[in-house]
Amino acid sequence: MTSTTGESRYTPVPEDRFSFGLWTVGWQGVDVFGPATRPPMDPAHAVHKLAELGAWGVTFHDNDIFAFDADDTARDQALDSFRKALEETGLVVPMVTTNLFGHPVFKDGGFTSNDRSVRRFALAKVARNLDLAAELGAKTFVMWGGREGAESAFAKDIGLALDRYREAVNLLGDYVLEQGYDLRFAIEPKPNEPRGDILLPTIGHALAFIESLDHPELVGVNPEVGHEEMAGMNFAAGIGQALWAGKLFHIDLNGQHGPRFDQDLRFGAGNLRGAFALVDLLETHGYDGPRHFDFKPPRTEDEEGVWASAAGCMKNYLVLRERAAAFRADPEVQAALEHSGVTTLGTPTLAEGETLQTVREETYDIETMAARGFAFEQLDQLAMDHLLGVR
Amino acid sequence: MTSTTGESRYTPVPEDRFSFGLWTVGWQGVDVFGPATRPPMDPAHAVHKLAELGAWGVTFHDNDIFAFDADDTARDQALDSFRKALEETGLVVPMVTTNLFGHPVFKDGGFTSNDRSVRRFALAKVARNLDLAAELGAKTFVMWGGREGAESAFAKDIGLALDRYREAVNLLGDYVLEQGYDLRFAIEPKPNEPRGDILLPTIGHALAFIESLDHPELVGVNPEVGHEEMAGMNFAAGIGQALWAGKLFHIDLNGQHGPRFDQDLRFGAGNLRGAFALVDLLETHGYDGPRHFDFKPPRTEDEEGVWASAAGCMKNYLVLRERAAAFRADPEVQAALEHSGVTTLGTPTLAEGETLQTVREETYDIETMAARGFAFEQLDQLAMDHLLGVR
Amino acid sequence: MTSTTGESRYTPVPEDRFSFGLWTVGWQGVDVFGPATRPPMDPAHAVHKLAELGAWGVTFHDNDIFAFDADDTARDQALDSFRKALEETGLVVPMVTTNLFGHPVFKDGGFTSNDRSVRRFALAKVARNLDLAAELGAKTFVMWGGREGAESAFAKDIGLALDRYREAVNLLGDYVLEQGYDLRFAIEPKPNEPRGDILLPTIGHALAFIESLDHPELVGVNPEVGHEEMAGMNFAAGIGQALWAGKLFHIDLNGQHGPRFDQDLRFGAGNLRGAFALVDLLETHGYDGPRHFDFKPPRTEDEEGVWASAAGCMKNYLVLRERAAAFRADPEVQAALEHSGVTTLGTPTLAEGETLQTVREETYDIETMAARGFAFEQLDQLAMDHLLGVR
Amino acid sequence: MTSTTGESRYTPVPEDRFSFGLWTVGWQGVDVFGPATRPPMDPAHAVHKLAELGAWGVTFHDNDIFAFDADDTARDQALDSFRKALEETGLVVPMVTTNLFGHPVFKDGGFTSNDRSVRRFALAKVARNLDLAAELGAKTFVMWGGREGAESAFAKDIGLALDRYREAVNLLGDYVLEQGYDLRFAIEPKPNEPRGDILLPTIGHALAFIESLDHPELVGVNPEVGHEEMAGMNFAAGIGQALWAGKLFHIDLNGQHGPRFDQDLRFGAGNLRGAFALVDLLETHGYDGPRHFDFKPPRTEDEEGVWASAAGCMKNYLVLRERAAAFRADPEVQAALEHSGVTTLGTPTLAEGETLQTVREETYDIETMAARGFAFEQLDQLAMDHLLGVR
Repeated sequence: MTSTTGESRYTPVPEDRFSFGLWTVGWQGVDVFGPATRPPMDPAHAVHKLAELGAWGVTFHDNDIFAFDADDTARDQALDSFRKALEETGLVVPMVTTNLFGHPVFKDGGFTSNDRSVRRFALAKVARNLDLAAELGAKTFVMWGGREGAESAFAKDIGLALDRYREAVNLLGDYVLEQGYDLRFAIEPKPNEPRGDILLPTIGHALAFIESLDHPELVGVNPEVGHEEMAGMNFAAGIGQALWAGKLFHIDLNGQHGPRFDQDLRFGAGNLRGAFALVDLLETHGYDGPRHFDFKPPRTEDEEGVWASAAGCMKNYLVLRERAAAFRADPEVQAALEHSGVTTLGTPTLAEGETLQTVREETYDIETMAARGFAFEQLDQLAMDHLLGVR
Repeated sequence: MTSTTGESRYTPVPEDRFSFGLWTVGWQGVDVFGPATRPPMDPAHAVHKLAELGAWGVTFHDNDIFAFDADDTARDQALDSFRKALEETGLVVPMVTTNLFGHPVFKDGGFTSNDRSVRRFALAKVARNLDLAAELGAKTFVMWGGREGAESAFAKDIGLALDRYREAVNLLGDYVLEQGYDLRFAIEPKPNEPRGDILLPTIGHALAFIESLDHPELVGVNPEVGHEEMAGMNFAAGIGQALWAGKLFHIDLNGQHGPRFDQDLRFGAGNLRGAFALVDLLETHGYDGPRHFDFKPPRTEDEEGVWASAAGCMKNYLVLRERAAAFRADPEVQAALEHSGVTTLGTPTLAEGETLQTVREETYDIETMAARGFAFEQLDQLAMDHLLGVR
Repeated sequence: MTSTTGESRYTPVPEDRFSFGLWTVGWQGVDVFGPATRPPMDPAHAVHKLAELGAWGVTFHDNDIFAFDADDTARDQALDSFRKALEETGLVVPMVTTNLFGHPVFKDGGFTSNDRSVRRFALAKVARNLDLAAELGAKTFVMWGGREGAESAFAKDIGLALDRYREAVNLLGDYVLEQGYDLRFAIEPKPNEPRGDILLPTIGHALAFIESLDHPELVGVNPEVGHEEMAGMNFAAGIGQALWAGKLFHIDLNGQHGPRFDQDLRFGAGNLRGAFALVDLLETHGYDGPRHFDFKPPRTEDEEGVWASAAGCMKNYLVLRERAAAFRADPEVQAALEHSGVTTLGTPTLAEGETLQTVREETYDIETMAARGFAFEQLDQLAMDHLLGVR
Repeated sequence: MTSTTGESRYTPVPEDRFSFGLWTVGWQGVDVFGPATRPPMDPAHAVHKLAELGAWGVTFHDNDIFAFDADDTARDQALDSFRKALEETGLVVPMVTTNLFGHPVFKDGGFTSNDRSVRRFALAKVARNLDLAAELGAKTFVMWGGREGAESAFAKDIGLALDRYREAVNLLGDYVLEQGYDLRFAIEPKPNEPRGDILLPTIGHALAFIESLDHPELVGVNPEVGHEEMAGMNFAAGIGQALWAGKLFHIDLNGQHGPRFDQDLRFGAGNLRGAFALVDLLETHGYDGPRHFDFKPPRTEDEEGVWASAAGCMKNYLVLRERAAAFRADPEVQAALEHSGVTTLGTPTLAEGETLQTVREETYDIETMAARGFAFEQLDQLAMDHLLGVR
């Protein structure tokens, strides 16, 4: 199964807009059952290696670069080193986020902690990080409220918690507008882990919440493959609704095996057919934001394995993108989409001037309508053939 | 936990606003693996039996009362018999819904079928049923789009499907307004089954969709316990968000054992602690809509088992309501809620006149804040004690 | 992505040992929410069509061919027509099974119904079907106990139920031995649906049960992809244990999207990477039993869609088999397997003559051992490259 | 449901045989997303506190007491302190286990690591710990192979891995026999987390594996509520099969909300009705092993919350035990069990002297058999009433 152009077509270039979180390649392997298996990774080193692999951007939580309790000097040193690496490599910082989940102070959340002083501290921490994000030219500020939730039903009043969440996002939105920052927010939903249940558990819940804000136009979503699949959701379908709502501001690509712990596999691993549908959707709908990988190289890997895993994320995306393009360009596929009525779903149900009365007076040939085969299996097998490269 | 009145306190009365779908007690037991185990149940008989058991209302899909292909005479006869039973018993019809999923014509959905003639027929079918709902005094019209979905990624363009869904709900909303019907719509989310993936899979997705409508005020949600729990969602938390959004127009109570097929167990079975949290939430927040049971008495039961199952739904609600009231009235619980910061979450994070600058300039005693124990385990054990009646 | 040999290499031939259940292509689309969307399919017609598509075998439940209440004449007529089709096409019957789940009499199970008369009837029904299986030359008799289970905890005493299950299998085993039939049994595990919980829910539970039988050598397992994946199990890993135990007597190939209702998608759909690992395992371990497809063409399909779906099952297997062979033949893969220690796991931990004392006295370079990277990500990306055909 | 003796009947006493792992109350709260929120707990302190609360036993992994790299002096000091606390309190050590999952050296497992030197080291580590277990009087040695598994399909050859697992358990079994230790082994299944998929994922897989051992009589299972429920399994049903096989050597009690990350909630939290069925089963079948709690007090709790959580485990067990006893003693329940055929399932399907021929010649009144209602809903509602204390 070779190609005249060889593997080069799967070599990432900056135009592919691939970005990685510092916390992904820098994950040391700490989990509930064991400590780090890899040494800390210098952010500047990560930047250089990602650039070598063909990445375009790098993203971070504040405390991926400097420690939670870093003083100004330590913070500046760490940032200088990081900035220097950016300059040397040309990598951009398309997105920044704030760690409101690691430090014990956030054990009951940040914006919605039952402790008001924690909520105030969380706002202060994010505000400072917004300044940094703007300075570094980030266009998106992600908010993952991983600790905003509860293990038991009476520990958190959902209505009050959503009030506080809204208050926080409204305040931060106002701040961005006041400062004139060219920044939008993206909420990252997750159903559970590390909390028993997390607020805004799916794309849908986040989209609904956004509509309650003072400036909904400032806020979109940052869905993550694994987070939705942990709830058994069809990720591409969720992205479809987010795109429909004009709210896909950012995306986290990785892999997962359905409802279980958050695996953060490299992109393509886990649900490969879902990944294919997703890439097709992003490319077909002209999504022009970052293709951001938020994965965790397994604890079994040394640094070489980390880079193999990161490279795999990008390669898999490129292969799927190629296959999706071939799928869409295939005349037989186009005919099949037509035959299955997929494209004709774009025709309004009522024509101009028609009313419910029109359709009530219409005569329907129910028997014929019921007998129609939709030929979805043929269509899906065409997709499979393209995915596997056998057409 | 004794009572001078014995079990009578668990005897349902109309004021409890318990309602049942005709399709629940009338379910004959057909599933993918076998045919009916129970004979058809006459709707009028169901109405009488439900009234005897203490129910307040009865609900239905159009084809629960008359066949899909009933002519006007057959339809009228069936409705007359049903109306007579309502009059004889005093049962009300708080909600009506339309079957857009049973007949083969709807195999690819109703409002979002890839076949435009099906979409038109679906609108006509619903419009006619809206007239019936209004005539019977129903206040809520539920829309469960059980066949609106797909088994494979390319069979349904999500954006186009949501366009058609919106078109349909807008048209029906306009119709209700034009007719002056005192009816609101409630969308019932479900993640999957019978379709591989269903549009608007959770409460969140439905709430977000509603915001896109021409008349969002007309439309709310009808969440079902099992449907959310099939996605691993915390049902009470989802209801919390729906209440926060002012969108809990109706509710379907039943039981489920997490992600698996749709079990439709009687209320209380499945996740009992979740049911307790739910009842507490509904009663505490003054939800005044129907307590609607949407369950399926298992296929092993004869008619006597059907009524035992229906009675169990109501009894379990009443026991949980009593326990929730005791929980809320317990001074130790109130102190625990305060101690855990649950109630103080109601205090805005910023006081009047404060800004982000205020909190950025504040000094935080991080060590003390981090060391605080939230005592959620004590609180949750108090809830357990009340649930089990050992306080 | 073309090939000099074209698509012919994916055309099934009898040597591929592909078989289909009559109930798969014959599924009419009845589910909990709607009736049939396809007319009944004559078994003889199914046999002819499957032969045309390249299948090798056909399997059935007794009542796939003749009705539950068929008298001897009707039974004979139905069987004659079926036998004639077999003769005309050369299709074989590698496996037969008995329907102990459809008829209402089995609503609480067959071998483990709480009704003793049902248990006796179930045994009689299976015994008669064993005669038929032997007569038709089947080598495997599958037992799927889909209704052996319960919806609530106290409805079924698990220990007593397993006693009865064992009694039944022992009796049937004795019968096969007495009759001198060349038949082995294969138990098909499933965690739930249609019952709330089913006895012997996974491969593991079935393997353990088998060891309790009078003639364990007569009984193996018939695992189904979707059944294990409904429990979040890694199917290939389960098959690995079944092969290790020498108990993979038969296999049901289909597709599923994790924990949810039983989807019975065509093979390859659902978890494609899992399907690749499975095919590799079967082919590498020289599994020589049938490749049996147990799927349900979605309710949206007409008969043409049914055959497209059936053809897709076989094509996907053949593509995956080709890719697995290329994977195994790739020297870089072989080196990677070695490098990751996969092959060296075959070396006993203790050498001949060594004891625990030997390893207790040994000195370990823990630091070096801990630092080793296992390079599983490189290995898995090689597998991905082969699966996608980009090497 | 009052009591003259008040809450004292829920006060644990040693006769209740409640035991706790040191790692449970000692869990500091490290997870994938954040570091410790609680300081280390001195094992001796834990012993004293557990004794105060009414526990009977305490269990541990070697490295719960002394560090992985402790020299003999440090090890002895730690053990001395622990032994002293045991003596002072009278707590026993019913079970010991070895940590083969924490240290980076075990990142690919212990007994089945692809690195043979790790496998040898693992055996040495366990052997030494067996000596300690025997010395402390433990009767059960638990083996939880949390890192025995893989994230990707080709990283682990399941057959070879099971060969090595068997080799290890055989060697350890021989050692225990040689030394004359009064110790049995209990394998603890888990489907996933921390590995993507773990070997012996359920009770069933472990039971089957045990039958392949040289000394199966030495080895049983140690099922954990949450581990099975993570796979959507009915825990009580799994315990039913383990009891049936005579293999329930130990049990881990906690709580979980279905398929998601391993929550390790206190016993009773999560699936309360499942906990009730479990306690009934254990008490009814005369299980006389430890009631061992393996939970993690949430990260939000301080030490006071830890003890509240531990106390809740025991109290919930005692309440459920009381309710189960009342359920079993209720004449109406006994009649319902009889009526539903639960007890009559104990009658062999064939009477003495009957054969399959007998049942084949029998005449069945299928219509009557099919019409029978099993009244499982009445029975289950009786169980609910007893659980909630309203009878």
